[in-house]
Amino acid sequence: MVGGANGSFIGPVHRMAIRMDNLADIVAGNFSRDGKSNFATAEELGIDASRTYTDWRSLIAAEKGRIDFLSVCTPNDSHYLIAKTALEAGINVMCEKPLSITSQEALDLERIARRKRLVLGVPFTYSGYPMVKLARDLVKKGELGRICKVVIEYQQGSFRKIDFTKPLDKRNAWKMDPKRSGRSCVVADIGVHGAHLIEYITGLEIKRVSADLSSFAPGNRLDDDASILIRLSKGAKAVMITSKVATGEENGIRLRVYGEKASLVWKVEEGNYLRVKTATGTEHVYKRNAPYIGGISPVSKRCSRIPAGHHEGFIEAFANHYHEFCAAINGKKGCDFPQARDGRHTIQFVDAVLESNNSDAKWVEVG
Amino acid sequence: MVGGANGSFIGPVHRMAIRMDNLADIVAGNFSRDGKSNFATAEELGIDASRTYTDWRSLIAAEKGRIDFLSVCTPNDSHYLIAKTALEAGINVMCEKPLSITSQEALDLERIARRKRLVLGVPFTYSGYPMVKLARDLVKKGELGRICKVVIEYQQGSFRKIDFTKPLDKRNAWKMDPKRSGRSCVVADIGVHGAHLIEYITGLEIKRVSADLSSFAPGNRLDDDASILIRLSKGAKAVMITSKVATGEENGIRLRVYGEKASLVWKVEEGNYLRVKTATGTEHVYKRNAPYIGGISPVSKRCSRIPAGHHEGFIEAFANHYHEFCAAINGKKGCDFPQARDGRHTIQFVDAVLESNNSDAKWVEVG
Amino acid sequence: MVGGANGSFIGPVHRMAIRMDNLADIVAGNFSRDGKSNFATAEELGIDASRTYTDWRSLIAAEKGRIDFLSVCTPNDSHYLIAKTALEAGINVMCEKPLSITSQEALDLERIARRKRLVLGVPFTYSGYPMVKLARDLVKKGELGRICKVVIEYQQGSFRKIDFTKPLDKRNAWKMDPKRSGRSCVVADIGVHGAHLIEYITGLEIKRVSADLSSFAPGNRLDDDASILIRLSKGAKAVMITSKVATGEENGIRLRVYGEKASLVWKVEEGNYLRVKTATGTEHVYKRNAPYIGGISPVSKRCSRIPAGHHEGFIEAFANHYHEFCAAINGKKGCDFPQARDGRHTIQFVDAVLESNNSDAKWVEVG
Amino acid sequence: MVGGANGSFIGPVHRMAIRMDNLADIVAGNFSRDGKSNFATAEELGIDASRTYTDWRSLIAAEKGRIDFLSVCTPNDSHYLIAKTALEAGINVMCEKPLSITSQEALDLERIARRKRLVLGVPFTYSGYPMVKLARDLVKKGELGRICKVVIEYQQGSFRKIDFTKPLDKRNAWKMDPKRSGRSCVVADIGVHGAHLIEYITGLEIKRVSADLSSFAPGNRLDDDASILIRLSKGAKAVMITSKVATGEENGIRLRVYGEKASLVWKVEEGNYLRVKTATGTEHVYKRNAPYIGGISPVSKRCSRIPAGHHEGFIEAFANHYHEFCAAINGKKGCDFPQARDGRHTIQFVDAVLESNNSDAKWVEVG
Repeated sequence: MVGGANGSFIGPVHRMAIRMDNLADIVAGNFSRDGKSNFATAEELGIDASRTYTDWRSLIAAEKGRIDFLSVCTPNDSHYLIAKTALEAGINVMCEKPLSITSQEALDLERIARRKRLVLGVPFTYSGYPMVKLARDLVKKGELGRICKVVIEYQQGSFRKIDFTKPLDKRNAWKMDPKRSGRSCVVADIGVHGAHLIEYITGLEIKRVSADLSSFAPGNRLDDDASILIRLSKGAKAVMITSKVATGEENGIRLRVYGEKASLVWKVEEGNYLRVKTATGTEHVYKRNAPYIGGISPVSKRCSRIPAGHHEGFIEAFANHYHEFCAAINGKKGCDFPQARDGRHTIQFVDAVLESNNSDAKWVEVG
Repeated sequence: MVGGANGSFIGPVHRMAIRMDNLADIVAGNFSRDGKSNFATAEELGIDASRTYTDWRSLIAAEKGRIDFLSVCTPNDSHYLIAKTALEAGINVMCEKPLSITSQEALDLERIARRKRLVLGVPFTYSGYPMVKLARDLVKKGELGRICKVVIEYQQGSFRKIDFTKPLDKRNAWKMDPKRSGRSCVVADIGVHGAHLIEYITGLEIKRVSADLSSFAPGNRLDDDASILIRLSKGAKAVMITSKVATGEENGIRLRVYGEKASLVWKVEEGNYLRVKTATGTEHVYKRNAPYIGGISPVSKRCSRIPAGHHEGFIEAFANHYHEFCAAINGKKGCDFPQARDGRHTIQFVDAVLESNNSDAKWVEVG
Repeated sequence: MVGGANGSFIGPVHRMAIRMDNLADIVAGNFSRDGKSNFATAEELGIDASRTYTDWRSLIAAEKGRIDFLSVCTPNDSHYLIAKTALEAGINVMCEKPLSITSQEALDLERIARRKRLVLGVPFTYSGYPMVKLARDLVKKGELGRICKVVIEYQQGSFRKIDFTKPLDKRNAWKMDPKRSGRSCVVADIGVHGAHLIEYITGLEIKRVSADLSSFAPGNRLDDDASILIRLSKGAKAVMITSKVATGEENGIRLRVYGEKASLVWKVEEGNYLRVKTATGTEHVYKRNAPYIGGISPVSKRCSRIPAGHHEGFIEAFANHYHEFCAAINGKKGCDFPQARDGRHTIQFVDAVLESNNSDAKWVEVG
Repeated sequence: MVGGANGSFIGPVHRMAIRMDNLADIVAGNFSRDGKSNFATAEELGIDASRTYTDWRSLIAAEKGRIDFLSVCTPNDSHYLIAKTALEAGINVMCEKPLSITSQEALDLERIARRKRLVLGVPFTYSGYPMVKLARDLVKKGELGRICKVVIEYQQGSFRKIDFTKPLDKRNAWKMDPKRSGRSCVVADIGVHGAHLIEYITGLEIKRVSADLSSFAPGNRLDDDASILIRLSKGAKAVMITSKVATGEENGIRLRVYGEKASLVWKVEEGNYLRVKTATGTEHVYKRNAPYIGGISPVSKRCSRIPAGHHEGFIEAFANHYHEFCAAINGKKGCDFPQARDGRHTIQFVDAVLESNNSDAKWVEVG
């Protein structure tokens, strides 16, 4: 692993996810550029001192051929170079989103992974939820009929706890620095989850966007709120609402898909359930790992660990991505996790959104 | 009353609302152009035969000076002429929305009412809900701080039960005929509720719109789905999502207001509750007619009939509009119900939305 | 009407319910023993002075033959005598619950009504909710299979707002005076709703009870909290949980019925919905007045005024009882509202509960 | 680990929980009496062949002094002997509930653990949920005032999927065999969770019970449904509702605690939230790991891994018990997890419930 020292959010999540199903272990790492934090994390994880590195280049050089994959949990601007170097060294990579800062870089990584026949995963957590997989499978089976409209939200209020007029703490500083995190904040950080989910569930492609971005938090220069009109393939449409200034919200991912025959609702707050409504019948509430699930959606069954009624959450969803990622490394076909294409296309989405916003919400093609 | 024969949806609602608080009674009517339906309704209501009219003009001519107000429940295209004639005869009017087909007509009615010092109400039901009134009062008191963003939805799936490729039944036929209902369907029929609510709760004004309309129902020529980006006064923004083809939805009015200090959520499905969230505290759930309500929002207290825990709904909300409308007729100041200005501005909103949609989502000024 | 002056809770509810469907009007009354309150209410209601009475005996004497029914909204201890006198004068009666203080009185009223072929209704509000009627019809159709267990709650926290160590205000004083309200408080006041609902929905009869009552509110001498084990006919069982000291609860009526094939949940807080769960399928959420309702439960359809998605509540449920009550007066058979038998059996239930509680929770037969 | 081969429910949960926080690893095991299953599990877990045992006695004999603790996941009837042998060998034990079949055995284990100064944990999962810990801490701080009443449910419908008139599969056979699982089914299997939670959250002790048990599933001889009246210390009361035949329920653990000043609600279905209601204020919804949590309840903060808004569930709650258990082994004082006393007292509770049910619901002392 590169990055993700203890104290960070996503590093420990990767580690819990990796270990959950007993498929892999963390054996080497360069967890931080801060030496103290790096070694403290390594020690706590029981990593051998000989495999604790002070920079990622030496890690890749030394571990090449010894590790099955590399997890990249560093700030956004370093994703490209680390992932590229690892791939070129023949190492499979699970790289945090966004895959890179520019679309060009992402295209580059996608090409290298394909050429080297390596697995390049991008853990967009929410498609790891079993009920999201069920949603995708219901759409695929035609239960909703032709898809007309998608409404997707990712609402956070985290910026309401930060004073941007003062120097930011380490955890936030890089996220608000365009050089390190990229030109967009809310769209690149969480809007990409929404873009991925739209495509994952509907099987449609995001084609054009018309966007209205704002910077509401006093002192913040990057976008922290976005409303985006979206045109999908096959005549479908979508709306994305995402924010970092939605006071009081935590991680409000909620999606609705409206088809000709039925619609579905999934909310992360009730992540173990999926609601399906038809024009004339009762509403159906599907439960994770209930008796019928395997028949409808084998992957959502496979990605459940405990019986219906006992709840799984974020960490388990993340572990599902590693579960499928590891299976792919082991040569299994048709594994279900977000890959280079998803990492790349979501960055193209961000680029198009920024361009539209800069030109008075005019419609801009994606990719 | 003009229009609203038994068998229609909104006519009986007006009557239940009028009678609920014992403030008025229906004493005269022309309930339908269909004579049989007109007389049957009158008889069932116990209206004297001498005050049952075969057309609205004779009703106004004969009842002028004898009735306190006229309720207009006819199809959209006749609102203007009936309301105008009544106002000019010195009769207060409660006119169903949309107040008229064109902005020009609405401006005209607004002017006449003002000149004649008559009360002209437009019963946008949802601002009659006590918890919506509480929401408005919380915003007014500054509990949310500066308002940044509003998300409003009105999702129906009713068109999924209709086959537009065949002749429509009477109840739907006029709604889908641009000559009788106006140039827009979903925006003029239900989007206007959303436009009214945004302004009612925030006290801000809708300034500009960028809209993407669709006609998803096979055979339908008018808009049946809309996604609208909105710019409000004082730098705030909004998004409206409204549809007639949201399969499985019934009347999903849901609104969220995000301010700098707090946000609020109200959903018609949980209409007796209002949720308020701050950046760092617990979520607060307010209950209709709870002990604290009167202190925060006297009008929401006044508009409650039964104790907290016993639920009020649509009919009671409608009755609240009549309650305030009757008080205004009796000369009370500061009554809280939608009036000519709201009826007119929502039509200007519809016009701007149509224009924006016709010019590739470009931003269009409202009014 | 006798009792129910303005300012009381249930009086105005009766009046709104009576007027809602245009089936009846209040034409005469003795609304309070307090002359001022009596006349003020009459005036506000537009009751003719000649039909405003200073005591209920003169009302009955004078209105005999002129009115279709009498609504009794007085404190509990007077129900028996007023209802009896009215019935003997040939007047149909809608009498607030509890029908009387003792089982003997209730049996007496039941007998008189039967003998005189008059309609004697007792408006247990909650069986007036369309979704409760749907629940009853689903059970009747065998959708749940054999009923095994019912869990019913009626949780209020109202006594947490009252200081029983000081003199009580008028509204509460009589309720806490055993001479005027009867020997039980929580069970007789709200537990009876639960007892009625169990029998209404399941069609089973309450046979035996084992009860544990408490008086938790400091200074309160009557029961204010009860947990009751119940044996129903046909081997089914139930549990009732009811309280006046459930801090923070308002009117938490929630019921669950578990059958061999399916179970159902209804909560007043989501009163327009009914949830049905089977052992192996998705959960079904039924909506009030949705397309399928009439096919399953014509009465729940008939008792709906507005479309699904627009919500009805307590007043409408109450109006449904009057709707059926008026139909019964007009000679219709099979009307669906609580009658003398229900009023009587719920009092027998209270008696058995008190006896069980006084004998260390031993099982006591009901009736 | 003894027991818990792959394919069982609770074995893998123990393993995921043990590994989640990197505090321990499974290094030796006897996972099944079935040799094939035992070795397959060991291999999948990467356990050294030399530390894979064919019976638990040889495991304890060989691993004595080499392992930090033993996890016991076998059927109920073997818990006592395995735990006893391990403790006497100086090994700390995490033993699945019920700790033993009889109260006497449980008392014995409790004594041995105390005498040997060893840690004996019993993983009642639900007190591992951070919001349950928060509930306990709110009660302890007096936020609810004096506790009056607790309502606790654990509703399962699993027996509706089983045909008890035919031979049962392996997973269910031992659970329905009184010799292997004990004299009670529903109370001993899941009612004990409720008993533990009541005491954990309120700090009160269960003193007396009056119980009504049923065997509703056709062909089932043990109790599968229970309604239990409970007397707690300090004059408080409780009701427990628990079932295996609650058709359509999965694992419905829901608890409500009513105090003089406030009440709280926690439901496993919304396990990341806790609701608190007062007599006169708004309802408060607490969120797991929100900013305020650490100030109110440091342990619930410590037992959270990811930010509010991202959800944790059953596995994380289980891991919290291991987290505290491991800390206790490492000598930390005041660790928060269920121990021998809880294991023993819940069995005494089961005994008292059975005795009460056998004597017509008379009140029986616990312990």
